[in-house]
Amino acid sequence: MSTYEAASKAKRASIDLAACDTDCKDKALLEIASELKSRMKDVLQANAEDLERSEKENLPAPLLKRLKFDESKIMDVIAGIESLRKLPEPVGKTLASTALDTDLELYKVSCPIGVIGVIFESRPDALVQISTLCLKSGNAVILKGGSEAHNTNRILWEIIKTATERAGLPKGWIQLIETREDVNAMLKLDDYIDLIIPRGSNEFVKWIMENSNIPVLGHADGICHAYVDENADLDMAVNVVLDSKTQYVAVCNATETLLVHANIAKRFLPLLKKGMEAKNVELVGDERVREFIPVGVATEEDWETEYLDYKLSIKIVDSLLEAIEHINTYSSGHTEAIITEDKERVETFMNLVDSGNVFWNCSTRFSDGFRYGFGAEVGISTNKIHARGPVGLEGLLIYKYKMIGHGNIVGDYESHKRTYKHTKLDKEFKL
Amino acid sequence: MSTYEAASKAKRASIDLAACDTDCKDKALLEIASELKSRMKDVLQANAEDLERSEKENLPAPLLKRLKFDESKIMDVIAGIESLRKLPEPVGKTLASTALDTDLELYKVSCPIGVIGVIFESRPDALVQISTLCLKSGNAVILKGGSEAHNTNRILWEIIKTATERAGLPKGWIQLIETREDVNAMLKLDDYIDLIIPRGSNEFVKWIMENSNIPVLGHADGICHAYVDENADLDMAVNVVLDSKTQYVAVCNATETLLVHANIAKRFLPLLKKGMEAKNVELVGDERVREFIPVGVATEEDWETEYLDYKLSIKIVDSLLEAIEHINTYSSGHTEAIITEDKERVETFMNLVDSGNVFWNCSTRFSDGFRYGFGAEVGISTNKIHARGPVGLEGLLIYKYKMIGHGNIVGDYESHKRTYKHTKLDKEFKL
Repeated sequence: MSTYEAASKAKRASIDLAACDTDCKDKALLEIASELKSRMKDVLQANAEDLERSEKENLPAPLLKRLKFDESKIMDVIAGIESLRKLPEPVGKTLASTALDTDLELYKVSCPIGVIGVIFESRPDALVQISTLCLKSGNAVILKGGSEAHNTNRILWEIIKTATERAGLPKGWIQLIETREDVNAMLKLDDYIDLIIPRGSNEFVKWIMENSNIPVLGHADGICHAYVDENADLDMAVNVVLDSKTQYVAVCNATETLLVHANIAKRFLPLLKKGMEAKNVELVGDERVREFIPVGVATEEDWETEYLDYKLSIKIVDSLLEAIEHINTYSSGHTEAIITEDKERVETFMNLVDSGNVFWNCSTRFSDGFRYGFGAEVGISTNKIHARGPVGLEGLLIYKYKMIGHGNIVGDYESHKRTYKHTKLDKEFKL
Repeated sequence: MSTYEAASKAKRASIDLAACDTDCKDKALLEIASELKSRMKDVLQANAEDLERSEKENLPAPLLKRLKFDESKIMDVIAGIESLRKLPEPVGKTLASTALDTDLELYKVSCPIGVIGVIFESRPDALVQISTLCLKSGNAVILKGGSEAHNTNRILWEIIKTATERAGLPKGWIQLIETREDVNAMLKLDDYIDLIIPRGSNEFVKWIMENSNIPVLGHADGICHAYVDENADLDMAVNVVLDSKTQYVAVCNATETLLVHANIAKRFLPLLKKGMEAKNVELVGDERVREFIPVGVATEEDWETEYLDYKLSIKIVDSLLEAIEHINTYSSGHTEAIITEDKERVETFMNLVDSGNVFWNCSTRFSDGFRYGFGAEVGISTNKIHARGPVGLEGLLIYKYKMIGHGNIVGDYESHKRTYKHTKLDKEFKL
């Protein structure tokens, strides 16, 4: 099937899927969980084939680890489906209601976006997670997984397709595309696909954003900053910066650059260096940093780099405003933390830093949908529209305005025969 | 000044503007109103020059009418500023709040998007409306008006700039660009501009959407439909369809295609024809329509055409589902109405029609920000993300996550030393 056919089938199915009720979607989620259990052996075998081939092709060890989809990961995925099923129904929620007149009521009601294109790498659990998120939110989905997980993705897609069609979901709601050429074709199908969620390397996400008219939800870089103010509790600062940098280095919410107020640099930097050395973190600093601690040289390029590794760049600033200026120049708009005991400075920092997540006295690593309590995560967005920061199910929703009249015409209001009331209703939509 | 300089100045100003409080923004709005009053003569003279030149250049009469900016229109604009000032502060609203733990609080707080690029045609009042909407929502703005209104736009921009800088708004928050080349340059500045709102012809809006990586909010076509079901009150149907088509034909929410259920076509079509003839509306219909009333031939092209004129295409359908299928195929996703007494059919229609506004027994012409009670309107969006349908001030806003900790680190939660609470707070953000 061509990508065009896949997308037009998904578009067609999306209309009926949008109207599926909670029972139907719940039944489909249960069927997926049960089909995954009963076909676990097939999944394990497909994954073993992918692993064997990828090992032969010398795929790097971290990617092999992500590719592995064993019994325990499958059980995690099944548990995830169960908790997704328990989340409240996101479609059909009345977001606002107004009586334009005594006999003319307007309701803003949540609904699915339509067709979501998802592009992800190696991890096969992502396929199940994102498909079930789309299902719960009533969206059709076109999936493109990494070629290294080809067999695993194909069987997982078959399982979800079979299970959900058995449960009565509209045929064609879940599509799988498999080649890079399919992705190129997909990026041009803006009449059929409403949103693309790419999960992958920075370069890849940037490439997607630059090569499609379809809106993209996600982030390319995650260049996060921590700023240690002159009024910081220095022990807390060391502890929070250590966690921000080293708790897990290969992720977008790890801190890459540390900004230190000049007035505490002399006391703070040696403490920090001791802590970072214990974790084997390579430090690079600007000239002023190197007056206090012996570390490598940080250049302009360091401020623009997402290391995703045990490496931290450090810069000394003379003021809060200089820190904010640095962040707004080099940050990718993801997550930034200030460590200080001064509330006024926190306020300035939170107001002026133009990033999706601004934290006071805690680790940048908290910037995550599960930690935020969203239950399920679509991804983390550095967009300035639609959804920003960690995105839960609501990132897959938009709304419709539904109006109930009794033969009302605009002419009566323009001629002043009738006048608008515009009274808040605070009422659920009901015909 | 180059477009690049204009955009980078706007970006810089947007950071400080985002932190301006209500008092500062209110003062700026008052200053604009007062400056407009005191410099009214200059505005009228600039507009007279634009009108004179445009008449010589044989600008069509409707465009000349839009271009005219007389004392009464200026007073309307000033009244608009006053009502905008009275709207509640949109920035800094707490949209959600959660305690991740007893000492770790997360707040989702509304904030401006950043820099908005606005492109509009002839009407100079649009310049004032959109600038003040951006001001109220804390966004910097880059304006591009029609060349026919060159003098008027320039003086209005100068007035707003002078007045708001006097009131203490950050310099550079409002930029004016003037040529088509500037627009081309603007479309490439996705590092500086966060959202483009184009108001103009369909072709122009489509061209913008296809030639920029910056998100675009708005609509190209407005191909709206009315469907008269077999269970409709036929007098009401005639009345509503007449208003939907003729109350104002040159607008995006006017109905362009009428769908009629076969079972009532024989009774309904002659009634409709009589009403439409009285308003001088040209009717075209498919073969089955022409069995009942003598009208012109509607072809495939008619279903795809936004007439913006006294012309209506009519098609007979055998079922509600056929009507929905036609709408989802040809509609631009703007506004569709069903006329029926059957609630079940309304429910199906509202669930399956994939448009931003779905109406029951009322005119499509109600689809408008002022009629919806939004007070101020940014435009009408047929996007499937961010904002859909008539868009008020909230279309110019996004949010930030602000987190308040006490030295919290992720490591403590991953090691199960501490556990997430995720309790709803229902509390305004406060440091």
